[in-house]
Amino acid sequence: MSLQTINDFSIQKTEKSKIDSIDFENVKFGTVFSDHMLVCHYKDGAWGQVEIKPYGPMQFEPSSNVFHYGQAIFEGMKAYKDDNDDVWLFRPRENWERFNKSAERLAMPQIDETRFVDGLKTLLQLDRDWVQKGKGNALYIRPFMIGTHPGVVAGPSSEFMFCIILSPARTYYSGKVKVQIAEHYSRAANGGVGYTKCSGNYAGQFYPTKLAQEAGYQQVIWTDDATHTKLEEAGTMNVFFRINDTLITAPTSERILDGVTRKSLLDIAKSKGLDVQVKSIVVNDLLEAIKKGELKEIFGAGTAVTIGQIEGFAYQDEYHQLPEIADEDSYAVMLKETLQGIQTKAIEDTFNWTEKI
Amino acid sequence: MSLQTINDFSIQKTEKSKIDSIDFENVKFGTVFSDHMLVCHYKDGAWGQVEIKPYGPMQFEPSSNVFHYGQAIFEGMKAYKDDNDDVWLFRPRENWERFNKSAERLAMPQIDETRFVDGLKTLLQLDRDWVQKGKGNALYIRPFMIGTHPGVVAGPSSEFMFCIILSPARTYYSGKVKVQIAEHYSRAANGGVGYTKCSGNYAGQFYPTKLAQEAGYQQVIWTDDATHTKLEEAGTMNVFFRINDTLITAPTSERILDGVTRKSLLDIAKSKGLDVQVKSIVVNDLLEAIKKGELKEIFGAGTAVTIGQIEGFAYQDEYHQLPEIADEDSYAVMLKETLQGIQTKAIEDTFNWTEKI
Ligand SMILES: Cc1ncc(COP(=O)(O)O)c(C=O)c1O
Ligand SMILES: Cc1ncc(COP(=O)(O)O)c(C=O)c1O
Repeated sequence: MSLQTINDFSIQKTEKSKIDSIDFENVKFGTVFSDHMLVCHYKDGAWGQVEIKPYGPMQFEPSSNVFHYGQAIFEGMKAYKDDNDDVWLFRPRENWERFNKSAERLAMPQIDETRFVDGLKTLLQLDRDWVQKGKGNALYIRPFMIGTHPGVVAGPSSEFMFCIILSPARTYYSGKVKVQIAEHYSRAANGGVGYTKCSGNYAGQFYPTKLAQEAGYQQVIWTDDATHTKLEEAGTMNVFFRINDTLITAPTSERILDGVTRKSLLDIAKSKGLDVQVKSIVVNDLLEAIKKGELKEIFGAGTAVTIGQIEGFAYQDEYHQLPEIADEDSYAVMLKETLQGIQTKAIEDTFNWTEKI
Repeated sequence: MSLQTINDFSIQKTEKSKIDSIDFENVKFGTVFSDHMLVCHYKDGAWGQVEIKPYGPMQFEPSSNVFHYGQAIFEGMKAYKDDNDDVWLFRPRENWERFNKSAERLAMPQIDETRFVDGLKTLLQLDRDWVQKGKGNALYIRPFMIGTHPGVVAGPSSEFMFCIILSPARTYYSGKVKVQIAEHYSRAANGGVGYTKCSGNYAGQFYPTKLAQEAGYQQVIWTDDATHTKLEEAGTMNVFFRINDTLITAPTSERILDGVTRKSLLDIAKSKGLDVQVKSIVVNDLLEAIKKGELKEIFGAGTAVTIGQIEGFAYQDEYHQLPEIADEDSYAVMLKETLQGIQTKAIEDTFNWTEKI
């Protein structure tokens, strides 16, 4: 199958682009959508035609599966524009593969690379003006799939919608954040869906995160639900710890999302000769390291923020502030600069991660 | 607040009822919906007017919170008709309270008793012909709430829709079922959302249930995710075990839904003088009891089926068949008869559980 020819798509262009009404300098992440979206329906055991059409609301039955039983998965990716106005994707096949892993665990159908990756590229060609140049700027890409079959029988849907929407994202420096280490609540079970990007994983985090925010912390570092000692993830980010000059992150598991940013940072760090260890890290390791003055940095890694620096953590009602670190000594800053450089083609992509559309 | 007067509602009646086109004798559970539905929107921190209007599709933004981050909760209840054509609800305030517990954990707004219970009664008055008489017949009631605010920022929605839809349900004897005890997959984490009726809890069960079905079992009995030894729930049912003449069910916890059927059966069983124990029960208890010939019955309990008898279970690739039991010796049959009798007013409701609309 190939979507090289336009015949495989139905493309309906918007009559009037709304791009001139967008204040790209001040756009708030995830609130504005581009002119077009991609829609594809699954029915009778097969995906239908890929439709690209103006972004807008759609009709759903109130008994649609997604409203009741939560068959809903998504991905988060970005498109970047280089100085020559070429538009680039970053490791899009990683997202496509992870989408299909999520789909399998949520009893949803697999989607082919053509509809996902080539479909996305065609959509991006149409909305390429929505990709802004400049460091940290990007067009955020949100592929998602939902169960659409009507009926309130608790079981998998037989009909699904795959959709891609696009939202301009600006670089933002939100400052370093304070986090709370989860002692009671958790986001994932052994044998559960923690490693997938299913909607339910996010809804479950909002209440504990709200409690953390009320206590003065912006994010929660999630721990394993059995012992609440293993440090696993932070909000929508994988999490890294630097103890002395060793960079540590938890191995991925059933409970942890296999982040594209995480795995890219691991490769960059190794290529820079850093001492990298993928191993389980527990709260006591952290408490000991901070006591000895060996805990240098903590940061989260994910597509939305690339890297988010963490300035301190609360555990058992005690707050632990990390020492100040100069930008030129920070692994977080160095890794973020390198990754963003590769993504926007400012730095040579020796890893072959970028893909021109 | 009170909705005694029709002014508090907006009621738009269907122009033509579709009730005559429904073959109530052969209706498949959860596939047909009544003429009307209740809809109410939450915005700017408050619930709006309760609208009752013809059942039908609605428009949603593709970036609505529910499609991405899964803020979606529901309830399942039934309305019954007695021999005098009066329509009855069963413990509706239990469902309303549980709905609000789910809402709190999912960072969704609380809804008042007036909109939920009185709103439902008004809806049922309009669609009362959809409640069929006869043992086991009922009108299934599905209240649900979803996050509707557009935007792909991972955080709670600021706008919500509360909705009630109604679906005629017939008694069905599906036979006894074979179940598989979960050894790898799980539905709930400690500190998670297992005790709520949020959509994500259901989507996560479909794949393991499909695997169980491919192996010849209709349902999964879920175990705790840390040790996979504690027997907790079965699909959309709480689960009861009878060892000799003792009826055992797990205590409710963060991981287990506090079922209305479960708690009603406990009260009925006690009122009948049965030996009832609410305690954690592990797989080994079951294996030992079956070896000694002491395991008499296993059954699930939930609104949809009332009671579903289980004829045997698979554990570690071995299938264990329960002994045959005559209906007149079965606790499951006795409890089901009593509960259904109370619900349909065939048996006196000494518990004060039923509520006329
Ligand atoms: C739970 C969770 N962990 C980690 C990540 C980071 O993954 P990625 O680097 O692929 O964006 C995400 C997604 O952004 C996430 O939702
Ligand atoms: C997970 C789960 N357990 C148990 C039950 C039984 O609860 P109830 O008796 O209130 O219907 C349900 C719902 O029907 C459920 O979804």
